[in-house]
Amino acid sequence: MSAISALWNADSIAVVGATERPGALGRKPMDFLLRHGYKGRILPVNPKGGEILGVPAHASLKEAPGPVDLALIMVGADRVPGAVDDCIAAGVPLAVIASSGFAETGPEGAALQAETVARARAGGLRLIGPNCIGAVSFNNRVLATFSPLFGAENVPFEPGTLGFVSQSGALGFGAASLALQRGLRPGWVVSTGNDADVTALEVLRELAGEPGCRGLLGYLEDVPDPDTLRALSASGTPVALLKSGRTEAGGRAAASHTGALATDDRVLDAALRQLGIARVDDIDELLDAAAAFEFPLRPKGPRVAVVTTSGGSGILAADAVGDCGLELSRLSEESIEALTEIVPPFGAVQNPVDITATVLSDPTLFDRSLDVLLADDGVDIIVACFCVMAGPDVEKAVTALSKAARKGGKPVLVARTGADFLAPDATAMLRDAQLPDYPTPARALKAAGALWQVSRPRPRITRAVGAALPLPAPRATEPQLKQLLAGAGIAVPDGRVVRDAEEAAALTAALGGRAVFKAVLPGLLHKSEAGGVRVGVTPQEARDAFQDLAALGGDVLVEELAADGAEALVGVRSSPLGTVLTVGLGGLFTELLDDVAHRVLPLADGDAERMIAELRGAALLHGARGTEAVGADALAGLLYRLSDAVRDWPGEFELDLNPVRLRPDGAIVLDAAFSAGDRPAG
Amino acid sequence: MSAISALWNADSIAVVGATERPGALGRKPMDFLLRHGYKGRILPVNPKGGEILGVPAHASLKEAPGPVDLALIMVGADRVPGAVDDCIAAGVPLAVIASSGFAETGPEGAALQAETVARARAGGLRLIGPNCIGAVSFNNRVLATFSPLFGAENVPFEPGTLGFVSQSGALGFGAASLALQRGLRPGWVVSTGNDADVTALEVLRELAGEPGCRGLLGYLEDVPDPDTLRALSASGTPVALLKSGRTEAGGRAAASHTGALATDDRVLDAALRQLGIARVDDIDELLDAAAAFEFPLRPKGPRVAVVTTSGGSGILAADAVGDCGLELSRLSEESIEALTEIVPPFGAVQNPVDITATVLSDPTLFDRSLDVLLADDGVDIIVACFCVMAGPDVEKAVTALSKAARKGGKPVLVARTGADFLAPDATAMLRDAQLPDYPTPARALKAAGALWQVSRPRPRITRAVGAALPLPAPRATEPQLKQLLAGAGIAVPDGRVVRDAEEAAALTAALGGRAVFKAVLPGLLHKSEAGGVRVGVTPQEARDAFQDLAALGGDVLVEELAADGAEALVGVRSSPLGTVLTVGLGGLFTELLDDVAHRVLPLADGDAERMIAELRGAALLHGARGTEAVGADALAGLLYRLSDAVRDWPGEFELDLNPVRLRPDGAIVLDAAFSAGDRPAG
Repeated sequence: MSAISALWNADSIAVVGATERPGALGRKPMDFLLRHGYKGRILPVNPKGGEILGVPAHASLKEAPGPVDLALIMVGADRVPGAVDDCIAAGVPLAVIASSGFAETGPEGAALQAETVARARAGGLRLIGPNCIGAVSFNNRVLATFSPLFGAENVPFEPGTLGFVSQSGALGFGAASLALQRGLRPGWVVSTGNDADVTALEVLRELAGEPGCRGLLGYLEDVPDPDTLRALSASGTPVALLKSGRTEAGGRAAASHTGALATDDRVLDAALRQLGIARVDDIDELLDAAAAFEFPLRPKGPRVAVVTTSGGSGILAADAVGDCGLELSRLSEESIEALTEIVPPFGAVQNPVDITATVLSDPTLFDRSLDVLLADDGVDIIVACFCVMAGPDVEKAVTALSKAARKGGKPVLVARTGADFLAPDATAMLRDAQLPDYPTPARALKAAGALWQVSRPRPRITRAVGAALPLPAPRATEPQLKQLLAGAGIAVPDGRVVRDAEEAAALTAALGGRAVFKAVLPGLLHKSEAGGVRVGVTPQEARDAFQDLAALGGDVLVEELAADGAEALVGVRSSPLGTVLTVGLGGLFTELLDDVAHRVLPLADGDAERMIAELRGAALLHGARGTEAVGADALAGLLYRLSDAVRDWPGEFELDLNPVRLRPDGAIVLDAAFSAGDRPAG
Repeated sequence: MSAISALWNADSIAVVGATERPGALGRKPMDFLLRHGYKGRILPVNPKGGEILGVPAHASLKEAPGPVDLALIMVGADRVPGAVDDCIAAGVPLAVIASSGFAETGPEGAALQAETVARARAGGLRLIGPNCIGAVSFNNRVLATFSPLFGAENVPFEPGTLGFVSQSGALGFGAASLALQRGLRPGWVVSTGNDADVTALEVLRELAGEPGCRGLLGYLEDVPDPDTLRALSASGTPVALLKSGRTEAGGRAAASHTGALATDDRVLDAALRQLGIARVDDIDELLDAAAAFEFPLRPKGPRVAVVTTSGGSGILAADAVGDCGLELSRLSEESIEALTEIVPPFGAVQNPVDITATVLSDPTLFDRSLDVLLADDGVDIIVACFCVMAGPDVEKAVTALSKAARKGGKPVLVARTGADFLAPDATAMLRDAQLPDYPTPARALKAAGALWQVSRPRPRITRAVGAALPLPAPRATEPQLKQLLAGAGIAVPDGRVVRDAEEAAALTAALGGRAVFKAVLPGLLHKSEAGGVRVGVTPQEARDAFQDLAALGGDVLVEELAADGAEALVGVRSSPLGTVLTVGLGGLFTELLDDVAHRVLPLADGDAERMIAELRGAALLHGARGTEAVGADALAGLLYRLSDAVRDWPGEFELDLNPVRLRPDGAIVLDAAFSAGDRPAG
């Protein structure tokens, strides 16, 4: 049993700071554990001793009878280090520090937090928090929390299959309460606050290994650790993450809240897509994804068929398909023929299939048309929409849907646009039939998109992996970088550093009579603006050009003049999420439109082609405007080689290849710049 | 009293096709009118006569004692024309045709529909439907509908202030049921089905004039009529529209559902923005906007302050601000100073203001910090976020919020992320305090965005309006068009049609020695590809160039060679929404990125500048890349002149000015093409 799993497996819980005083936070966990029937030993710790809510209290943790699997610390920040020492002394493996007054309050608190973590680590104690609301297991009735949720009179408390981990306790338990309200079944809810030792992501990874966990939800403010993220992804458990601080404004708010490190949010988008983790934008979406994760069926592809009793719902569903990374299925001729037999003449047999309100008098319309869609090989996911039906009509519709869904092997999601008071049992019936339901077609489609995102086959690396390059020197020059790149099979212009004007002239002639001269000066980033570049130099001009550039104080590089072509920029840099590869088309596309694509390395099969396809200007590379096709394949080849070449590079670095000239026969790196260790990765 | 308002003012309702048979649709309106206490006369019409649910039935409408204000027709489609005749004979002003079997079923049904409408119009009868579920007024208890909603045991039935009109009956009443579930108060719900005579938009316009109507919601499948849309906008009542068929896939589904005419969805976006109507993407958003419309306070600007008890909610709110057309307020130094006194040290005094969970022990944190934000002139809208609080804590928070909100004069929206079971009275308390509430910060922000959209000052026309031009001839040539445009003060190149080679040479010399020669051939759209354009012709080359182009069979236009510069394309065309002006930057931006902006004419003050600013490539025109500033002002001037010039053009037409060369000193139309009446406007 890992230390973290004590959050849901603890056979004994110490509540440090427990009290009987009505209204006090330290009373709540005692209340909750007793009320909700925790089966293990409860060990309240209070200097006064005595009894707390009928349970014998201990003056200190050291005096409590062991073993203690989990300690919940609810004392003032100044007394937390002492409590941590007591935990270590008592051999407690995991403590939840609910107390505030740490890094969230400023430098002093941050120091206290660092000290507390250092003590814990030295003593073999893992910490959740501080500044958190604790954790609950609905399965084992472990309640190491003071969340008011568990004091509510009618809070549902049943075993569940969903794990929800949130850095923000209030938002986490708030969202969990909304999950309960809509009939979802959270099994575990954990808030991790400042993530000082154990992070929210680590808890998610731990939960992924729990038998009975069908889906995981996370609310994160910090940039996730890439190794833990990969392990979480590898578990195969469906995960949806709400990562806030998405925008500049949100990022500023996050930094002031938890000191979270900002990163390029689109890199996180790319990393999560690569790992098959669904990213959502709001709490609603998180819970909508969870509703789909709860059931075992997974789509084999992104093609959606919509069957609806309301034309309006069908149109809204079709509108939403593209936004969710899904496609509208093209039904087979057999399907359309079969549906024509079933669907009333004023309905529609194309996708969306509109079976009309006639379903009220003939509920078999639903299961018969579903049967057709389930049998169609071009359909991976089905979204069934109905509206305001009441009582028995809903029952009949659900029965028809579940009858078909059971035998189908394809996920069926339901958009039921109608109030609960119309059919109070509908939610439970749909759940029993393993049909996740949503109030609107668009929300059902978004959840279907999340389901596809966590179900799609992960790209693998089956291609031959190219040469690995050593990390360049911190101030490597352009010719040094180009020589290095050439060693990985990356094309650079023919040429070399010349010693004198004579060699410059001779080389210019050898390179075809027109060359590019470049001053080589480490640290001179804007060579062109500084007069350090001459393009189209002839052998006659070569001596003067050499003298001019040599006068700038460095070497002179003479290279062949590359043929015209489209331009791209390619970069690799370290980031909190791993090494990031970026590609964009040169010039206006990048400067004005920020039209770039990112991937965390290594690239899997097809990743380079997908990156290029993501660029809005990609058509430029595929023969738009009647010109010949240029360079998409060559650019993809460069991306793979670069991905392989930098795979062992440690530390903080940034390599920019800009521009890369694209020709049908290859991608040539015209300029390269490198920096290392001297700037924060971001 | 207009005919349409009988939907909510009828003192007498005939139900044609009424029956007592249990389960029959024709029984439902009778049931509903009796059950919900309709105060007027109910006149069931059934050939068998007798009594229906205790109300005397009439064998035909003609025999029913008049006057009849409203007839609900629920007979088979084949018997509808007869029922319409009876309505006319009985002097009924408005009939709701619930029956299906009309345009939605195909050409035969469409013919029956056309005939029915023609009869009604000839007889002075207005029609709602056919193929609709009818209408309800919660205020006057008029229920001309068979929606199962009103048979539900516990359906709330109270007076309300929101009007909801939907082409789709199922979706409309489904959404209305969700509105009731969340405590919103619909006053009127109308479904208009095929919109054969009265359209959904006309009903909205009519409702806008109803005393007590505070907000309007519409679900539309057809492209809205621009005159009705303008009248609706002019009413000043807040309106949110969900228009489906937004995407190509959705548009196809819509066309097959109601035969709705497709239009460029972005033109509709622009038209609604211009008219101060909020456009939403889903039912949830529609109801979220409604929750904000119900209360009278309106923002004076787009600047949002967020106050939160949970850091997480604050970050999510900040993330959402930009997506909703809003800005995060920059708080004044006075505000920050004042907040520093109030907010605990581990909170945040910048916007978002994080008052932390300390609010649980001191609810005055909420009203004291709200007081500061209400007094800050840089704050237009306040979003207050809290999470999982239970029972009395929610009560205290709401009391504090309402205390401040009452005196503030600024809308306060609440994001309460917590289940209803935690605080069953919270919704009602918030409503009583006129505080619209939402389950997540992002949804509160979206609603705030809709509220700003319907509240923002409508741009006016105060500028001097330029010359109006006559409609060009259907096959007007380039020189004719340019001459016309020049008459409206729009710059075109110097030049003219020349008669012979000598004149061509002389004019070339007179134009500076370098000219552009163009073949003038009506119908030759791709002049360049056809060899009909020569650029940079010298006086020496002029004779040959003239002969070559004249050989193509038309006139030859000789023009000055325009100086280099950025290029734009400008177009005006008729559309179902009125004349549409489109502007884009030339070349790749338009071809690859579809980077264009639209407005329905006429342009109001500032519209042209806003259109240009909307272009992703706009920076090109403002001196990006270190070049001189080019042409944004000149382009705006052209857009205004063109808007004025085409204002009287009738019918279907399309005028393309492409390219327009942009120079700091002016925008010059290099080419112009026109077509009229020979293509469908789209």
